[in-house]
Amino acid sequence: MRIDGRTNDQMRKVDIVRNYIKTAEGSVYITVGDTRVICTATVEDRVPPFLRNTGKGWITAEYSMLPRATLTRTPREASKGKLSGRTMEIQRLIGRALRSVVDLKELGERTLWLDCDVIQADGGTRTASITGAFVAMVDALVPMVKNGTLPTLPVKDFLAATSVGIVGENACLDLCYEEDSTAIVDMNIVMTGSGKYVEIQGTGEESPFTTDQFNELLFLAKKGTEELIRMQKEVLGEDAKLVGGIRETSPLKGQESLSE
Amino acid sequence: MRIDGRTNDQMRKVDIVRNYIKTAEGSVYITVGDTRVICTATVEDRVPPFLRNTGKGWITAEYSMLPRATLTRTPREASKGKLSGRTMEIQRLIGRALRSVVDLKELGERTLWLDCDVIQADGGTRTASITGAFVAMVDALVPMVKNGTLPTLPVKDFLAATSVGIVGENACLDLCYEEDSTAIVDMNIVMTGSGKYVEIQGTGEESPFTTDQFNELLFLAKKGTEELIRMQKEVLGEDAKLVGGIRETSPLKGQESLSE
Amino acid sequence: MRIDGRTNDQMRKVDIVRNYIKTAEGSVYITVGDTRVICTATVEDRVPPFLRNTGKGWITAEYSMLPRATLTRTPREASKGKLSGRTMEIQRLIGRALRSVVDLKELGERTLWLDCDVIQADGGTRTASITGAFVAMVDALVPMVKNGTLPTLPVKDFLAATSVGIVGENACLDLCYEEDSTAIVDMNIVMTGSGKYVEIQGTGEESPFTTDQFNELLFLAKKGTEELIRMQKEVLGEDAKLVGGIRETSPLKGQESLSE
Amino acid sequence: MRIDGRTNDQMRKVDIVRNYIKTAEGSVYITVGDTRVICTATVEDRVPPFLRNTGKGWITAEYSMLPRATLTRTPREASKGKLSGRTMEIQRLIGRALRSVVDLKELGERTLWLDCDVIQADGGTRTASITGAFVAMVDALVPMVKNGTLPTLPVKDFLAATSVGIVGENACLDLCYEEDSTAIVDMNIVMTGSGKYVEIQGTGEESPFTTDQFNELLFLAKKGTEELIRMQKEVLGEDAKLVGGIRETSPLKGQESLSE
Amino acid sequence: MRIDGRTNDQMRKVDIVRNYIKTAEGSVYITVGDTRVICTATVEDRVPPFLRNTGKGWITAEYSMLPRATLTRTPREASKGKLSGRTMEIQRLIGRALRSVVDLKELGERTLWLDCDVIQADGGTRTASITGAFVAMVDALVPMVKNGTLPTLPVKDFLAATSVGIVGENACLDLCYEEDSTAIVDMNIVMTGSGKYVEIQGTGEESPFTTDQFNELLFLAKKGTEELIRMQKEVLGEDAKLVGGIRETSPLKGQESLSE
Amino acid sequence: MRIDGRTNDQMRKVDIVRNYIKTAEGSVYITVGDTRVICTATVEDRVPPFLRNTGKGWITAEYSMLPRATLTRTPREASKGKLSGRTMEIQRLIGRALRSVVDLKELGERTLWLDCDVIQADGGTRTASITGAFVAMVDALVPMVKNGTLPTLPVKDFLAATSVGIVGENACLDLCYEEDSTAIVDMNIVMTGSGKYVEIQGTGEESPFTTDQFNELLFLAKKGTEELIRMQKEVLGEDAKLVGGIRETSPLKGQESLSE
Repeated sequence: MRIDGRTNDQMRKVDIVRNYIKTAEGSVYITVGDTRVICTATVEDRVPPFLRNTGKGWITAEYSMLPRATLTRTPREASKGKLSGRTMEIQRLIGRALRSVVDLKELGERTLWLDCDVIQADGGTRTASITGAFVAMVDALVPMVKNGTLPTLPVKDFLAATSVGIVGENACLDLCYEEDSTAIVDMNIVMTGSGKYVEIQGTGEESPFTTDQFNELLFLAKKGTEELIRMQKEVLGEDAKLVGGIRETSPLKGQESLSE
Repeated sequence: MRIDGRTNDQMRKVDIVRNYIKTAEGSVYITVGDTRVICTATVEDRVPPFLRNTGKGWITAEYSMLPRATLTRTPREASKGKLSGRTMEIQRLIGRALRSVVDLKELGERTLWLDCDVIQADGGTRTASITGAFVAMVDALVPMVKNGTLPTLPVKDFLAATSVGIVGENACLDLCYEEDSTAIVDMNIVMTGSGKYVEIQGTGEESPFTTDQFNELLFLAKKGTEELIRMQKEVLGEDAKLVGGIRETSPLKGQESLSE
Repeated sequence: MRIDGRTNDQMRKVDIVRNYIKTAEGSVYITVGDTRVICTATVEDRVPPFLRNTGKGWITAEYSMLPRATLTRTPREASKGKLSGRTMEIQRLIGRALRSVVDLKELGERTLWLDCDVIQADGGTRTASITGAFVAMVDALVPMVKNGTLPTLPVKDFLAATSVGIVGENACLDLCYEEDSTAIVDMNIVMTGSGKYVEIQGTGEESPFTTDQFNELLFLAKKGTEELIRMQKEVLGEDAKLVGGIRETSPLKGQESLSE
Repeated sequence: MRIDGRTNDQMRKVDIVRNYIKTAEGSVYITVGDTRVICTATVEDRVPPFLRNTGKGWITAEYSMLPRATLTRTPREASKGKLSGRTMEIQRLIGRALRSVVDLKELGERTLWLDCDVIQADGGTRTASITGAFVAMVDALVPMVKNGTLPTLPVKDFLAATSVGIVGENACLDLCYEEDSTAIVDMNIVMTGSGKYVEIQGTGEESPFTTDQFNELLFLAKKGTEELIRMQKEVLGEDAKLVGGIRETSPLKGQESLSE
Repeated sequence: MRIDGRTNDQMRKVDIVRNYIKTAEGSVYITVGDTRVICTATVEDRVPPFLRNTGKGWITAEYSMLPRATLTRTPREASKGKLSGRTMEIQRLIGRALRSVVDLKELGERTLWLDCDVIQADGGTRTASITGAFVAMVDALVPMVKNGTLPTLPVKDFLAATSVGIVGENACLDLCYEEDSTAIVDMNIVMTGSGKYVEIQGTGEESPFTTDQFNELLFLAKKGTEELIRMQKEVLGEDAKLVGGIRETSPLKGQESLSE
Repeated sequence: MRIDGRTNDQMRKVDIVRNYIKTAEGSVYITVGDTRVICTATVEDRVPPFLRNTGKGWITAEYSMLPRATLTRTPREASKGKLSGRTMEIQRLIGRALRSVVDLKELGERTLWLDCDVIQADGGTRTASITGAFVAMVDALVPMVKNGTLPTLPVKDFLAATSVGIVGENACLDLCYEEDSTAIVDMNIVMTGSGKYVEIQGTGEESPFTTDQFNELLFLAKKGTEELIRMQKEVLGEDAKLVGGIRETSPLKGQESLSE
């Protein structure tokens, strides 16, 4: 039995609220247990210099925690004048993960900004951010399909993330903060709707791990991300059907990527 | 009739939710119309260098907006590596305002951090921050009275803030963003429960103003802050009674300040 | 009797020297008691990005103190690598105040830089800066009228600033440093030649204040700024007559602002 | 056949030179194909604040590239005034990896600094850094065992790292730059001498990957790190025998960690 | 004949005003032609970390120019958030030069801050700063001798600096801005009252120079610094006699330095 | 006899290796005793803003030390977020020195970046950097002459640098770290192949120096730089003959500079 009464393969309660911020194109409020994150998506009509005149778009993420998202106050990075290595690592991860399921050519020369702000942290903030940002991104893009700005939704597949780890002797799904801080192995996994891996980041700083332990963790992660993607589909309702549609409608695309 | 149907002396709908963030000593979620701010209060057992060994405490505030609190995305100050002048001005104002109603000697050598994070902005974010931070501060201090860490609540009076301004030809209370951006005179007022001024900041960048206009604005501000303080009392319930109690219980205090 | 022998409504000795720096378009050396400030004005033939192609100009101010303007050495902001909140607040105030009396359309797409460097500080540095910067600004613009670059002087009215405050029990005009640091209420007021308010910033951090106290302070501020504007007119001599002239010569202007 | 004539499971030529920098306690010059890195190890007799008076030591890494380690000049981070996200991510990885095989209690309140400076980059710079830094670390610590400062070498196991990836259709070991920049899946693996994983970082930004592909990559990584550890042992000669000895000599250690 | 009518070996008019800033321990206003600099000296009762508990003091200088000291506005380093290489070079030069004539042991564990702020620049600002800062330093230290804090003035010799250069074909003394910007060789020389060199910085970026040219320049510099030191003595009056006195009164000093 | 057994006028062993870094246009590994520096040269097809459309090129240098180039670890400037004054001073010196022997008009609108990275420091790192960077620069430019991009090599003369100083009572050539740190006078000299001075930087912070001492030091520096230039010629082989050729081949150049 885990500290909060869950079984080893049980996720915490997840809730996803769409349209949480009136001022943003896409915005999601996601709670995973006591972890609460606001994710917003912004579409900007230009790309970073290295993509200008390539016809391709870009997706970039920023991540932050309110000072009191944590039990002791974490000084603001804005006040310290620089981002921590942890923040940089997380926002690079979120951006990379989201880009893996978007056809940047179909997006066109636009930048999608995904802002993930943690208002309460209880473990798994980066994975909750990815899961929530995916929905915010869809919400920002769907109206562009509906009003004809984009021919199809450039989102090729669903995407969700969860954490797994070895706590004591047990492989567990979706670690809360207390588990995370005592885990001897800690892993974040990002998977697609078709069950493929987008990102695997496993660390055994406290104790190196074996192939068997690793496989056990991957198994739990698969279960977790499948549940999360089911929830994403449910909350997106009709709009969920637009995801992945691009594969049918652009047969030429596959050829291109073979020859690239 | 104003843009959102209010009369000139009418505030927007205000809501104050206590204990909004589980990880913080005091936390408030305040909404004033479409302006939404999370205010947290942290008690730290040390003071800045200039107050060490003085027996006095300190109150400091930090203010930030989520990138998509605004209609177009505002780049993060953490990413730019420095605070804007606007942010600095606002957080200095919030800290100064809160200090005006706290007996820093009674607080003892502690620092109160007030973090105000705007998650949606529609005008009046700094005044909503002050009004909300006051309640978060009381919530962080009351348990210290109850558990005997503090003999009495070092909060001498209630405190709330509102904005007023001249929009077109009319003096109006509690400007929303659209009014604020076209106002020719713009004023932020902080007042106490006993109806005194703590801070008056009026700017007529678009058009200098007369004494008559000024008095009209002060009148509206008084009405607004009175309403806000009524709401604070209501939401604080029993705890509201602890505010101001210090004046009776420390007769020596006046003598001390005479001899300083 | 005040600490330096003045009556409550008496300003310190003020002196304004024009053309103090040979290398600058406009430059003023202003002394208010022991407060000494060098104000220079620079005309640059371009505007910040947000004003490009609008036909409008801009006025921006920068403020600094020499390290030994104060009794103990203040570390340089250049060495610390960032501006303090106080500096930002002051330079925003100076810029805003000066913009309130300039017709930015008449100025055309130019930026006026007003640099205020305090070489000795004895209270009231920000208000002395505004009063001095006004004269430096006129000195930078008048030659442009005389050589035909500008049709008329785009300065609509005179502008001066002073501080007032409650020291002990008394409302006083033009506080010196010693008064300022013990005042329970502290206020900076910027007024125009026609007696209107441009900026009112009053703070009762030590002690909230009443409407009566407030009115008493406004009365003193009016007296002070009137004296300062009289001095500005005197020192500007013939050039003073160009100030405000624009109002007669551009009757269309009023209509424009109605339709904006 | 790969671009440089290797088979898919073949590493590039590796060379490890000890005592490369006269001024450092430990220093290694490692070349992996055309990737060349200088790794130095410094022992400092104090720890970061969060470890003071805990009896535990710390290991931290810094990573940098000379501007012309790359084909086009990369601007210096020192000149830009901040570290890139990539640099932060890499130095966090190196530090975490090295800490996983060191008994920080046995190290005592000391900090080991591992500096990895890439003088020529051709792919795999972070993994070459880890492999080289391990040897530099041993070289810095062995003399402390020999002179009695440390009772035993606090290094519990060997540690090496390599990159693997899917290039075109093939899983390949030890990617050079040209392969790395076209790989659809890219993975860095850190392993111990006993064949356990310390860190797995796999990214399929270009194309999500399946479990089968993943297993194929892990297999290659195992082969690569085994070869690297063989080389480490050879180059360390007699000193290699001190690695891992600590496990025998401190039976109490296991108990301690149980009770923690 | 030079551009301003001087002969090649003629300095510009120099003026040194003592006690220019009321708030500083030592303060000098020096003008060399149209170059005008405010130099202040501050005595601080502590030293940088590397000198703690050594019994030795330190001297450090900071240098800045007002934005309109120059014909076109120079952006503030405080606003840009960092010092330019030029500023760093100059303030290192000033500090080093002043330290060369002070017995840091006799100064005791104190730091002397020398702030040099250029309010108008017409060439030779760094050398004017050194010449002025010397007098400000003496003014800050003499009262400490008079009140017994220091046994003798720890200033071993006079110190002044001037610039020389080859303009067109001619070696010239004390270059004004226009000469300086066209000089093919440019040299700054710091000399002591006993005619020794403290610093020689010569640059022939436009044209390398011969030994003969070099000697001609040194000859002019000697003439210039002798004149400047004559002026320093005159302006210091009686206090000048305290300079150098230390050499007689501390016979032990030589022995100490032998044994170091 | 000096600490390392050399005579006073004897340089340490110097070695210059060309083409040290495969990825750079020009790259040199220079060792002067135990001082070891990697110098690379990069040609960029654009110039800084102040040279755009002037037809002239630019040369700029950057200098850095690996953290363990020194006996105790020097924190990275990239981690501290800013360059030290020492680094700025050195890189300004290197750039200025190299520019003095290059015809920037003949170079055309290109920027030459010279990166000097010290991997082991034992005194004289800045002068070794200059001597090595000269060869790297030639190596980057010669291919541009050979392939017709440049009509002739725009390098007008050879250039080398050395340090000299007074150690104890003796004037010495090429100080090692131990000598340098105890020298009472310290001087860096940059000279051309035709025996002219490009830069003389002499400092007597510990003890002002006389003209005689100065001349003795210049004499040693001449001997040292002559030896270094002999080595540069030898290592450059045939390519050495291209240096200085420009003076014969562009008779018009002299006229141009007269009319400038």
